[in-house]
Amino acid sequence: MDVKELFSDKVKHLEGSAIREMFKLMAKPEIISFAGGSPDSALFPNRELAEISDRILKEQGPLALQYGVTEGYTPLREWVVDRLSSQGIDCSFDNTIIVSGGQQGIDLAAKSLLNAGDGVICEEPSFIGGLNCFRSYNAEIYGVPVESDGIDTDRLEEILKAHDNIKILYTIATFQNPSGITMSYEKRKRVLELAEKYNIIVFEDNPYGELRFSGEPVPTLKSMDKSGRVVYFGSFSKILSPGMRIGFTTAEPELIGKMVICKQVQDVHTPVLTQMIAHEFVTNYSIDEHISKISKVYGKKCEQMMSLMDEIFPDCVEHTRPEGGLFLFCTMPDGIDSKKLLNAAIERNVAFVPGATTMVDADKVYSSFRMNYSMASEEQIDKGVRILAEVLKDALAAL
Amino acid sequence: MDVKELFSDKVKHLEGSAIREMFKLMAKPEIISFAGGSPDSALFPNRELAEISDRILKEQGPLALQYGVTEGYTPLREWVVDRLSSQGIDCSFDNTIIVSGGQQGIDLAAKSLLNAGDGVICEEPSFIGGLNCFRSYNAEIYGVPVESDGIDTDRLEEILKAHDNIKILYTIATFQNPSGITMSYEKRKRVLELAEKYNIIVFEDNPYGELRFSGEPVPTLKSMDKSGRVVYFGSFSKILSPGMRIGFTTAEPELIGKMVICKQVQDVHTPVLTQMIAHEFVTNYSIDEHISKISKVYGKKCEQMMSLMDEIFPDCVEHTRPEGGLFLFCTMPDGIDSKKLLNAAIERNVAFVPGATTMVDADKVYSSFRMNYSMASEEQIDKGVRILAEVLKDALAAL
Repeated sequence: MDVKELFSDKVKHLEGSAIREMFKLMAKPEIISFAGGSPDSALFPNRELAEISDRILKEQGPLALQYGVTEGYTPLREWVVDRLSSQGIDCSFDNTIIVSGGQQGIDLAAKSLLNAGDGVICEEPSFIGGLNCFRSYNAEIYGVPVESDGIDTDRLEEILKAHDNIKILYTIATFQNPSGITMSYEKRKRVLELAEKYNIIVFEDNPYGELRFSGEPVPTLKSMDKSGRVVYFGSFSKILSPGMRIGFTTAEPELIGKMVICKQVQDVHTPVLTQMIAHEFVTNYSIDEHISKISKVYGKKCEQMMSLMDEIFPDCVEHTRPEGGLFLFCTMPDGIDSKKLLNAAIERNVAFVPGATTMVDADKVYSSFRMNYSMASEEQIDKGVRILAEVLKDALAAL
Repeated sequence: MDVKELFSDKVKHLEGSAIREMFKLMAKPEIISFAGGSPDSALFPNRELAEISDRILKEQGPLALQYGVTEGYTPLREWVVDRLSSQGIDCSFDNTIIVSGGQQGIDLAAKSLLNAGDGVICEEPSFIGGLNCFRSYNAEIYGVPVESDGIDTDRLEEILKAHDNIKILYTIATFQNPSGITMSYEKRKRVLELAEKYNIIVFEDNPYGELRFSGEPVPTLKSMDKSGRVVYFGSFSKILSPGMRIGFTTAEPELIGKMVICKQVQDVHTPVLTQMIAHEFVTNYSIDEHISKISKVYGKKCEQMMSLMDEIFPDCVEHTRPEGGLFLFCTMPDGIDSKKLLNAAIERNVAFVPGATTMVDADKVYSSFRMNYSMASEEQIDKGVRILAEVLKDALAAL
C-alpha cells in the first residue's frame, strides 16, 4: 500500500533534516566535530552511577522496574521543586513534573496549546528541536533576531502587533543554543511586559543555565513571572547525563494537568530506574561540585577556542563570547553560504552546524554557523580551529 | 492569566479519567487490587539487571550516558528484528525502531496519520491508553464489539462501509486488554481482507503475545500482512520490566520515517542505559526461560481466579477464559452499573476496573469489569474473589 497518502497534515511537510545526511559523513572517526551538542562524555560520573544503580536494583528492584507515576518519581519531583525554589522560582509539587528530557516538556506544552496555524515566535537563530516541534503541530513560526544582549524586543513587539494568531514565544534566554548569548535583565523585563500586553505564553527553555563559567547570573524569566505566563523547561541532560533523558517542567497547574494527560498517552511515564538514579546522585552525591567541575572544563575549552579564533580567523569573521553553556556562533560576511563551507570543511575533516538549520526558513542561505566546544579535546580544538581558519580564508578568497 | 483560554482543540476536551480518582482510593494498603495492569514485581530479574547495569556503567559509561540515536540502540534493534523474523514477521533494521514503551509507538503512529475528525475503529472493550491517544488527536472513534473469538468482523465491515473517514483499526488481537480474548485465525484473515478492501491501516498492539500459558499460538496479523498495512507494536514491559519503558515498532519504512521525526521532537531518543541493559539481558541471559517462568505463574493465578469464580460467583456473572496475558473480563446482567459496584467493592477493600473506562463512550453505563490476576498473591486472589462474590450477590439482590 502507499502509506504516504494517509499521512496527517501535521507530518506531511516534515522532512528529515538535510543536515542528518551530513551528520552521517561526520561520523567518520577522523572527523574533528564541533557540530554536536553533547556534554563531554569523559566527565560523566560513571562509577558513582554504577554504584547507585547496582544498589537501587538490588534493594528496590520492584519499585525501579515497575510502572511508575506519570508526573514523575516523587522524591525527584520534590528535589526539583526545592532546587527551583532556591533559584527564586515560585513552584510547587503540583505544578512541577518530571519529563523524558527537556524536549518532551516542550512537546507536551506545544501539543496542549497549539492548533494548526497558531503562531509561535522563535529566536533566530534557535534550537532545531524547538523549531521542529512547533513545525510538527503545523504552527506558523515567526523569527525574531537575537542581538548581543538577547532577542530584539522592538522587533518582537512589531511581530506581536502585526499578527493576532501568536500564542507562544519560545526563548532560550541563558547561554542560548546556538548563539551562546544571554538575554539581559532589562530585556527579560521587557519580554514579560510584552507577553502580558499581548496575552501570550513564554516557553523558557533553560538546559544550560547552570553551566556558567564567567560573568554574573541573570534571573530566569520564570523567577520574574508574576502572572503564570512562563512555562519553564529544565533538564538533567547537561548537568548529569543526556542519555538518561530526564527533564522537568513547571507551569500553571491547569497546563501541567493537560501535559500530564498527554504524557500518559505518549510514554506513560519517564523510566523509574533512571529517575531513581538521578535522584540518588543529586541528593547523596555532590551535584553542585559536579556542575562546578564541568563548567570549569567548558569555560577553559571555550576560552581556548575563542582565543585561537581571535588570533587566526580572518578579521571579518565574528563570533559571540558566551559566559556559559556549550556553544558559540560565528558570522561570516554576507555571500558565504555556511552549508557550502561545511562541505569544504568536512573534506578537511572538520564539522560544525551551518546556520540555516537553526533558522525559521532553513532553505535560505546563511553565512553563520554554530561551534560546540564541550566535546572536542584541547588538541582537537587547536587542530580543528586551525583547519577551519584555512577553509574560511579559501572561501573568502573565492568571494 | 487564564491559561485555559489558550488550550488547543486537541486537549480542551481531554479529562483526567474519573477512574484516577478511584485509583487514589485504591492506594490504601489494605486494598486487594485486581485493577492494575502490571506484571508481578516479585518476578523481575533484579539481581541480574543490577549486575548488568553495574557492568555497563563501569565499562561503557560514556556510551550509556551520552545522547543516542533516535531510532534506538543498534544492537537492541538488531535483536528485535531477529526475534520478530523468527516469529514470521517480515521486517528489517530500517523499518523497525525502539520506542519508549509500546504506548509511544501508538502515539507516534497516530500523530503521523491522524487529522482531527479522522476515524479510528477500536475494539469494545479496548485499552484506555489507546483510546485516549486517539482522543488526544481529536479522532472520531468507532467501537466494534469483541466476541469470544475476537472482533465482530461483520459489524466491522458495516462501520467501514458507513464511514469514509476511517484510517485506522486498532486491535490487541492476542490476550486482549481488557478482555483476555484472542482473535481467531479466520477473523485475522478477514480483518486483513477488510483492511485491504477499505484501504485502512491496522495497528496491532501486541504487548501480551509472548505470555501464553495454554492453547495454541495464533499467527500475528503482522506475520500475515502482505501489503504493509499492519503497524506492529511490541514491548518489553510485560516480558521484562514496564518501568524501563522500552518497546518497538515495525511498519512500512515511510511511516517509520515520519515516526522517527516525531520521536526526535518528542523525546529525542529512548534512554540508552535502559536499552543497553535490556539488550544485555535478552542476549546473554535467558529471556525465553524468563518468559516461560512468568507465563506459568500467570497461568496458575488465572486458573485459580477462574476456578474460584466458577465455584462462587453468581451463575449470571460470566467471565472470559484467557489463554495468556494479564486480564479476564466479567459481564454481569444488564442493569448493574460496574462503576457503582466498584464503589461497593472498594468499601470492602477490593478493586477492579469498571467496563466504562474501556469503552468508546465512557459516560454510558456498563455491567462489565476487568480483573487482573498477575499482581495479587494466591491468598489475595482467594480472599478478594470471595469478597467480590458477596458484593455481586448484594448488587443482584438489589436489582
